Amino acid sequence: MITMTPIPGNSFYGRDILSVDQFARDDLEYIFGVAEGMRDIARGPGSSDLLRGKVLSCLFYEPSTRTSSSFVAAMSRLGGSVIPINEVHYSSVTKGESLPDTIRTLECYSDVIVLRHPETGSARIAADFARIPVINGGDGIGEHPTQALLDLFTIQEELGHIDGLSVVMVGDLKYGRTVHSLARLLSLYNVRILCVAPDVLRMPDRIIAQLQERGIPTGETADLNVVLADADVLYVTRVQKERFEDQALYERVKGSYVITPQTLRRAKEKMVVMHPLPRVGEISYEVDSDPRAAYFRQMENGMYIRMALLAAVLGKT
Amino acid sequence: MITMTPIPGNSFYGRDILSVDQFARDDLEYIFGVAEGMRDIARGPGSSDLLRGKVLSCLFYEPSTRTSSSFVAAMSRLGGSVIPINEVHYSSVTKGESLPDTIRTLECYSDVIVLRHPETGSARIAADFARIPVINGGDGIGEHPTQALLDLFTIQEELGHIDGLSVVMVGDLKYGRTVHSLARLLSLYNVRILCVAPDVLRMPDRIIAQLQERGIPTGETADLNVVLADADVLYVTRVQKERFEDQALYERVKGSYVITPQTLRRAKEKMVVMHPLPRVGEISYEVDSDPRAAYFRQMENGMYIRMALLAAVLGKT
Amino acid sequence: MITMTPIPGNSFYGRDILSVDQFARDDLEYIFGVAEGMRDIARGPGSSDLLRGKVLSCLFYEPSTRTSSSFVAAMSRLGGSVIPINEVHYSSVTKGESLPDTIRTLECYSDVIVLRHPETGSARIAADFARIPVINGGDGIGEHPTQALLDLFTIQEELGHIDGLSVVMVGDLKYGRTVHSLARLLSLYNVRILCVAPDVLRMPDRIIAQLQERGIPTGETADLNVVLADADVLYVTRVQKERFEDQALYERVKGSYVITPQTLRRAKEKMVVMHPLPRVGEISYEVDSDPRAAYFRQMENGMYIRMALLAAVLGKT
Repeated sequence: MITMTPIPGNSFYGRDILSVDQFARDDLEYIFGVAEGMRDIARGPGSSDLLRGKVLSCLFYEPSTRTSSSFVAAMSRLGGSVIPINEVHYSSVTKGESLPDTIRTLECYSDVIVLRHPETGSARIAADFARIPVINGGDGIGEHPTQALLDLFTIQEELGHIDGLSVVMVGDLKYGRTVHSLARLLSLYNVRILCVAPDVLRMPDRIIAQLQERGIPTGETADLNVVLADADVLYVTRVQKERFEDQALYERVKGSYVITPQTLRRAKEKMVVMHPLPRVGEISYEVDSDPRAAYFRQMENGMYIRMALLAAVLGKT
Repeated sequence: MITMTPIPGNSFYGRDILSVDQFARDDLEYIFGVAEGMRDIARGPGSSDLLRGKVLSCLFYEPSTRTSSSFVAAMSRLGGSVIPINEVHYSSVTKGESLPDTIRTLECYSDVIVLRHPETGSARIAADFARIPVINGGDGIGEHPTQALLDLFTIQEELGHIDGLSVVMVGDLKYGRTVHSLARLLSLYNVRILCVAPDVLRMPDRIIAQLQERGIPTGETADLNVVLADADVLYVTRVQKERFEDQALYERVKGSYVITPQTLRRAKEKMVVMHPLPRVGEISYEVDSDPRAAYFRQMENGMYIRMALLAAVLGKT
Repeated sequence: MITMTPIPGNSFYGRDILSVDQFARDDLEYIFGVAEGMRDIARGPGSSDLLRGKVLSCLFYEPSTRTSSSFVAAMSRLGGSVIPINEVHYSSVTKGESLPDTIRTLECYSDVIVLRHPETGSARIAADFARIPVINGGDGIGEHPTQALLDLFTIQEELGHIDGLSVVMVGDLKYGRTVHSLARLLSLYNVRILCVAPDVLRMPDRIIAQLQERGIPTGETADLNVVLADADVLYVTRVQKERFEDQALYERVKGSYVITPQTLRRAKEKMVVMHPLPRVGEISYEVDSDPRAAYFRQMENGMYIRMALLAAVLGKT
């Protein structure tokens, strides 16, 4: 990315969105404010002309219906267009083209690029070569900053504030980039983070260390019951069978983290259950009708956050 | 679907389009009237802003170039946008996500969903979970209501009326959902339905029984020549090789239902030949230049009907 | 294509774009003038409403990220919509549908068709059946006229003129349709064409003969050094491993045509290096920062040329 003239108040104009680490609290407040405006657009007139004539390249080297659909919807609701490149197995990449060349081609056609790629660091490489903003739509086990932003935005929208909350993360905390990124964003606030996972899927020590360096009280347990009653946020993730060598352990572990209406009886009246989706059994369908089930509102917030980011990096906020 | 406030005259606002059985004659007349207006838009200015800012999710679990293309075109010509999700093998569904969760995700991003799915009843399930309208784009051997609507619309546009016509259906009447759905719609009118098929591909007895209950005169034969001269509509369908255990029988049967210029010499001067397409030899290319060959106009009508349905369920008619 | 009333000055209204052979110098100048206007739109406001309400069907029977993306971008920047049909393996074509039927279906939904197809002559067949303009997006080893147009446009934009130039083509000149088409377009000008290729990948005699018939001075060599210093344009193409029976020869040949900063030291100060991309090693990344490296500007010009062609065939220039 080359530097562009920033618009007052918007420090994102012309910038890439690569990592949660680039956001300070002020930045988050700015983006969340814009996202609330986007919600008003979507719920009111449904769309605007803010990005009319702008073109987004959605370059997805691996599938992600949710992320790609919400970027397409975000761009459409702001009047812009999308070049979808979803089947990269079916494209010039299969002819051996390098990511930089693909990026430099797409920057000739479009105003902003969203990249989803299986390799950690690929978004950074893309951004180094692109003159237009690159938004990281997930790069392997690396970052997925727009997911973390929508997660945090959901907490604020659901509970009205972030400071002072107890956030319980449950499930696969070892491999889940979602919880890692969210934890890093949460560390900008005065929160408690409680990690609930079987031993084989514990939150990595380096993340725990980072949180503690920043003065975030953390706790760890394998038993959800220990912390459930304290949770203001219960952030549930998938426990993937293939992570386990011992399948008997998997079966035991899996069951212990399934959220049901019975689970929620022991939770606060005012709290939220979140999940990055897709879920595969971690939250029973009976929970969906509980007002604390926020995961579909979380989806919706994803579109508002992406609308906000697109508008911001294109200097239209 | 939740109930929305209907607009006077449009009983489709906020409703799902799941089955031909939900249409009464009044409904058909209403939709056909709107479709004629859509044709005027397409043939005149080419497009309108009627659905500007609206987003359609095209969720296709199996391929259908024709259906998906005409929905994309319909939405585009009305100024709306499309989230195409064509490669579901390549999406979160492959991560094991349930149809209801996928639907609830897409309803966060879009205003209406078209679903194509290989399993009968899937459109109903989707509609039960969605707060936004769901249009059935074909669910297995179940329903394909927009196809039946465009078929009936084509008959009316080509011949000026539907009452009083003799409709000959030929080919695979056993497995073809197209002819089943069209027969059910036709039963709202005063028509005769004549079924021409080899024994192994006969129209199912339950469909014949339904038609007769509604007072529709029906007839069955394996010999097209018996009824051809009476046909106002000759609705041709594909005879698929894989339906036959006896390949010799297939070869004999297949040939006997190929429509050629010679076939049409024995047909009325004013009648129409229809086919849901794609054809694979059932109608020879020489027939295309016959003014009675209506199958490409039938395609075109598909776009008008889909424009009408989208506008109707979104309350913009 | 049926004939439509032409707009004064635009002889392309309603016409197909099938082959470079349909272009005279006047036509090229007309299209290049329109393309320059399109660049002003893209670089200024970013988009226009010129093709608002128009629908393009992008029918790709084989992958081409670059060509399809630039057509999608071109249509979007002119306010039009696109029906992308990229995965033809996944469509009705797999049900055995013929190209003419697919074309006749798409013409019901759209205003113009871009076809990419592996078989030579397929674009002509499509055009014979379509009432709307068909643009050849590459048909096998046949033609790829929009690529040749953007190549020639790039030469003119980079060097200010075409007459009088020495164009060196290097790499696989036997199978590369790009160089064949460009050579035919260049033969409308007063240029010299110098062919640099190993013996097994020589420019076909029929092309050389055509050029000489038209009075174009040509030369052939296997050694780039012989002609490099004279080059105003160095047009580099991929040397594909699979063309060689003798792999040792491939390895030797491959290395001899790699363009590096060292290579360019022996080239003119004012000249351009072009490549249709994707490259796989033929031009080293170090060359990218050389002002003579024009291949990414060439990409960009592809969008302007396609915007110009779409506007022209739709009568909006």
